[in-house]
Amino acid sequence: MKTPRSAATGEERLIARHFRPLATHPGALGLIDDAAVLSVPAASELVLTVDAVVAGVHFFPGDPPDLVAKKALRVNLSDLAAKGATPAGFLLSLALPQSVDDRWLKAFTRGLRADAKAYGCPLLGGDTDRTAGPITISIAAFGTLPKGAMVHRSGARTGDRIVVTGTVGDAALGLALRRAGNARPWRLRPRERAHLSARYLLPQPRNAIAECIRKYATAAMDVSDGLAGDLGKLCAASGVAAIVDVARVPLSPAARRAVAAEPRLIEMALTGGDDYEILAAVPPRAVAALRSKAKAKGVPVTEIGTVVRGKPAARFRDREGKQMLFKRLSFSHF
Amino acid sequence: MKTPRSAATGEERLIARHFRPLATHPGALGLIDDAAVLSVPAASELVLTVDAVVAGVHFFPGDPPDLVAKKALRVNLSDLAAKGATPAGFLLSLALPQSVDDRWLKAFTRGLRADAKAYGCPLLGGDTDRTAGPITISIAAFGTLPKGAMVHRSGARTGDRIVVTGTVGDAALGLALRRAGNARPWRLRPRERAHLSARYLLPQPRNAIAECIRKYATAAMDVSDGLAGDLGKLCAASGVAAIVDVARVPLSPAARRAVAAEPRLIEMALTGGDDYEILAAVPPRAVAALRSKAKAKGVPVTEIGTVVRGKPAARFRDREGKQMLFKRLSFSHF
Repeated sequence: MKTPRSAATGEERLIARHFRPLATHPGALGLIDDAAVLSVPAASELVLTVDAVVAGVHFFPGDPPDLVAKKALRVNLSDLAAKGATPAGFLLSLALPQSVDDRWLKAFTRGLRADAKAYGCPLLGGDTDRTAGPITISIAAFGTLPKGAMVHRSGARTGDRIVVTGTVGDAALGLALRRAGNARPWRLRPRERAHLSARYLLPQPRNAIAECIRKYATAAMDVSDGLAGDLGKLCAASGVAAIVDVARVPLSPAARRAVAAEPRLIEMALTGGDDYEILAAVPPRAVAALRSKAKAKGVPVTEIGTVVRGKPAARFRDREGKQMLFKRLSFSHF
Repeated sequence: MKTPRSAATGEERLIARHFRPLATHPGALGLIDDAAVLSVPAASELVLTVDAVVAGVHFFPGDPPDLVAKKALRVNLSDLAAKGATPAGFLLSLALPQSVDDRWLKAFTRGLRADAKAYGCPLLGGDTDRTAGPITISIAAFGTLPKGAMVHRSGARTGDRIVVTGTVGDAALGLALRRAGNARPWRLRPRERAHLSARYLLPQPRNAIAECIRKYATAAMDVSDGLAGDLGKLCAASGVAAIVDVARVPLSPAARRAVAAEPRLIEMALTGGDDYEILAAVPPRAVAALRSKAKAKGVPVTEIGTVVRGKPAARFRDREGKQMLFKRLSFSHF
C-alpha cells in the first residue's frame, strides 16, 4: 500500500527530469497540472485509442528502452493511421518496478521524444506508479479528422478489394527467431535475420497514408493480431466474407526464404501478430489510385483478395484454389 | 512473450461478455473497432487526464472488485471536477494476472457500469492484456468545458482564500486502520471506523460542483497526495505562498476523535493521500457564493487559509500561530 517516503518530491523530480522536456504541446501545461487541455477544430472530431505493452508479453525485458518507448507509442499510432486520423497527442501511464533506473528512463524518454516529434504526436500528460510486477506502459492516443470521416471496420461491401500495406508475417517470424536464439533456422542470411528481428522489435505504422485510407477505403483496421484473424474481424463487423489468395499476400524476401525453407511457416506469417500494417477494403475502381498515392508516400499497397457475399469469415486459398485451414486464426492473450 | 492460444477469440469473448454492455456511447462503436470517436462542441474544449491504480499499491488485492473499478474511475473523475470539466467518457487499459476470473470481472464491470452511469462518463474503448504482475487498471478520462474555462493550478493570486471541500485526512486514517488490523486504535466507535475505512476504499469525487469551481475559483486541484503537499504544488504553480490555519481544516467526527486520542495524527491527516476533495483558491468576495452554491449541491466548502506574497510554499499554523513542520509534505511513489 501507499507508504509515504521522506523525499516527497521524488515523483515530481522524475517527471521534471524525464518527462517535462516532452511536454511541448501548450495544452500539456508543462505537466504541472492535473489534466491537459485540447482544442478540436469545429469541423473535426477526435479519434481515441488505447493500447498497453507489458514487459514479458509485448517486449522482452532487456529490449532497448528507447525502442520499447517507440513500440508503445507506435502500436497506438497504427490504430490512428488505420482510422484515417492525424495524430494530435497522447497520454502516458507508466507502472515501473524498482529495478527501473534513471538510465532506463533516460533512454525510454529519448525514444518517446523522437517518435512524438517524428509523428507529430506530443505528450499531453501522464501518470507514473510503482508496481511489484513488470514494466507496464499504457498509452492513450488521440487523432483528429473531418467530422464523420473516420474509417470504420464495418464499411466493407461486396465487390470491394482487400488490400494490405507493406509485408505480412515478418514480426511473427522475427519473434520466432528471437525465441530460437542461436539455433539460426530457415537458412536465412544475416541481413534477413536482422530484417525480421527489427520488424518485431519496432513497428512501422503507416501514418503517412492516413489521408489516402480516409479517401479510398470503405473499411480499414491495423493488422496487430495476425492477418487471418484481423480480416475475420473486419468481415464480422461488415457482415461480409472475404477470399484471399495466399500467393498474393506480400512477403518480404526474408519471409519468402523462411517459407521456402519450411512451408508450414506460411501459417505463422498469416496468423502471427505485430505486423502493424493497414488492412483495408477498397472499391475496385479506387484500388489503382490508392496504390499510386500510397506509393508516392513510400508505402506499398498490395491487392490480396475480394469481398464476397456470405457468412462473415475470411477465407484463404492456396495456389491450387483450395481453402487453407489454420490451427488458430490470430493471437489472443485470453 | 505472445503465445497464440487455440481459442483465438478468447479476448473477443471477454470483451463481448463483460465490457460491451458498458459501451453505451455511440462513439464507442460497440467496442468492435480499433478506436472510438468523440465530437467536441465548437465552443468547448477537451480536458484529458490519466491515472492508474495498481493492486498492492492503490488498493488491497482482496478489495471488492466493484469498488476497485469505482475507485479507478473516480480518481480520474476527481481530476475533471477540480478542473471544472463535465465528464464525457473514458478509455480503460487493463492488465490482468491469470488469477482474475470471470466472477471478478463480472463484479468489476458491474461497479464500473454503475459509476459510468452515475457520473455520465461512459466507456469509449479499452485494451486488455495479460500480466505476470498485479492487477493494473489505467483509465484515461475526458471532460468538456467552454473554451478557455479550465481552472488551472496556476491562477492563485495574493489575497485569495484557500478553500477545501468535505473533510481531509479520512482516507489516510482509514488506510492506517486497515493496516492496524485488529489492533483497533484511537478509541473509535464502530461507525467511525467504518467511515474512515470507506473513505479509503471509495473516493467521493466532487463532480457535482465542477461548474461552481469554474465560476469562482482562480486555481484548483484535487487533493490526492495529501493537503500539505498538494497545496504546495498549487502555490508553486501560481508563484505564491499560502498560510493555512490547521484549526480550520475540516475533519470528520471520526478523524477528530482519532486526533484527540493521538494528537500526532494531525500530521497524517494533513499529509496523507487519497482525500479526493477539491482544493481551490477563491477571491475573498466569491467565497460566500461558492459556499452557498456548493452547499446546495450537497458539498461543504470550508475556508482554511489565505494566499500571500512570498516564496512559493504552503505554511501550516497551529492554534498558537506557530508554523508546523512536517516530516514529509505528501505522498510520493518515488
